[in-house]
Amino acid sequence: MRTAFYISDGTAITAEVFGHATLSLFPVDFKHITIPFVETIEKALEVKAQINACCRGAGEKPLVFFTFVNPELSDIINTSDAKCYDFLNTISGQVQAELNVSPVPRTHRTHSIHEKNYDFRIDAVNYALANDDGANLKDYAEADIILIGVSRCGKTPTSLYLALQYGIKAANYPFTEDDMDELKLPRALVPYRKKLFGLTIDPERLAAIRHERMANSRYASLRQCRIEIREVEMLYKNHKIPYLSSTHYSVEEISAKIIAETGLERRKY
Amino acid sequence: MRTAFYISDGTAITAEVFGHATLSLFPVDFKHITIPFVETIEKALEVKAQINACCRGAGEKPLVFFTFVNPELSDIINTSDAKCYDFLNTISGQVQAELNVSPVPRTHRTHSIHEKNYDFRIDAVNYALANDDGANLKDYAEADIILIGVSRCGKTPTSLYLALQYGIKAANYPFTEDDMDELKLPRALVPYRKKLFGLTIDPERLAAIRHERMANSRYASLRQCRIEIREVEMLYKNHKIPYLSSTHYSVEEISAKIIAETGLERRKY
Repeated sequence: MRTAFYISDGTAITAEVFGHATLSLFPVDFKHITIPFVETIEKALEVKAQINACCRGAGEKPLVFFTFVNPELSDIINTSDAKCYDFLNTISGQVQAELNVSPVPRTHRTHSIHEKNYDFRIDAVNYALANDDGANLKDYAEADIILIGVSRCGKTPTSLYLALQYGIKAANYPFTEDDMDELKLPRALVPYRKKLFGLTIDPERLAAIRHERMANSRYASLRQCRIEIREVEMLYKNHKIPYLSSTHYSVEEISAKIIAETGLERRKY
Repeated sequence: MRTAFYISDGTAITAEVFGHATLSLFPVDFKHITIPFVETIEKALEVKAQINACCRGAGEKPLVFFTFVNPELSDIINTSDAKCYDFLNTISGQVQAELNVSPVPRTHRTHSIHEKNYDFRIDAVNYALANDDGANLKDYAEADIILIGVSRCGKTPTSLYLALQYGIKAANYPFTEDDMDELKLPRALVPYRKKLFGLTIDPERLAAIRHERMANSRYASLRQCRIEIREVEMLYKNHKIPYLSSTHYSVEEISAKIIAETGLERRKY
């Protein structure tokens, strides 16, 4: 199997995201190796030796996606027995021409604790945990958004993703049978109607997820899931609450759709 | 302020990560606009109109970072009044030549529910929540890693990040004063010594974080923080537990360092 390396003087997250997106275009399996925090000549020479050994062992060149601020480190990796893609520099020259501004490279300019609003993101994670699953009804004034839905429709992972990736304070509230009487909004949510966003899910998928958690229970039965989903969707419609189905979407996709639909302010790019 | 657009037929996460890394090289402020799920001609034409309006309003061309699978959509955006960077195609041609394999573009090939191990990542998030903060001592056999440290040193956000981004099952256990007697490992952790990874933090930073939570308490006092950190670091050394300081690092950096140091298996690239 061909090997792809992702190498950086920082986390290598940028190299991974870009390299992974590029390689996913091709119907080829790769072995992935990430080497972050290559910050010295010595370490870069070690990595070069590792790449060269990989090339000798496999009989073909590994692909290397890298980002370095220090050009001495780039030069070392570029002279290894690999196909190296210095993808950031390829485009930054074009951007420089357009902006007519010289780049001022700094290490750890992305994904570091010095990024704008880093502390806010961690606060948002703590907020999401404290306000998960209806655990706390008092702090909804502080929420940017309140995700609502039946148990196991995807509220918790989405709340955490919104917090970690975007610094959005997301509470979540699970509808239970008690809430469903007459399809009224629970009293704690009424003052925050504008912040509500509903999730729904196909009853079959919901039943499968609940079975994993509590096999053969009434809670996991398809009949129960169908009833709950029908009621919760009626509630969304009656109260004109925006909602989407999580059935076919990842947390990344659900989060992107919620932000696009609500215009929520993100605190991280 | 100049505007940067990130546009895609999917989440636009790849366009954002790449565009953000590129623009962060330049000492220029940008207004950022992400438009995900541009999947139809109609929607692409709307976006083109929005870009053109932005250009007219600002009197300068916005920068556009995009990824599309459908070339018809790329063409529409490429003919807008913007500087467009089709960064993925720039490199994929070179990769195609090296692999001697044609690309097989598919929409939603990254960041979707169809990615390998997606369900495992969600399981890992649920595992991290159920095993947060010593809440559960019974399921450590299932852990890939157990983060340990004093209260508020960064264990919880790191556990969640490892789960969400990498599908790594991370439990975390907070040392309390009771645990510190004679610097012994808590009994629940002894069988899992190989899975332990310690976090530490500068006492000054710890005191500041704890003050936010419980101002002017003994818990937040600098003296108390110094005692706890000194004891916990001695414990790590006595038991040869690998550890790092979270003081100057983001959750992204801490996670990348832990994975690099332990060789933990990632379930997502």
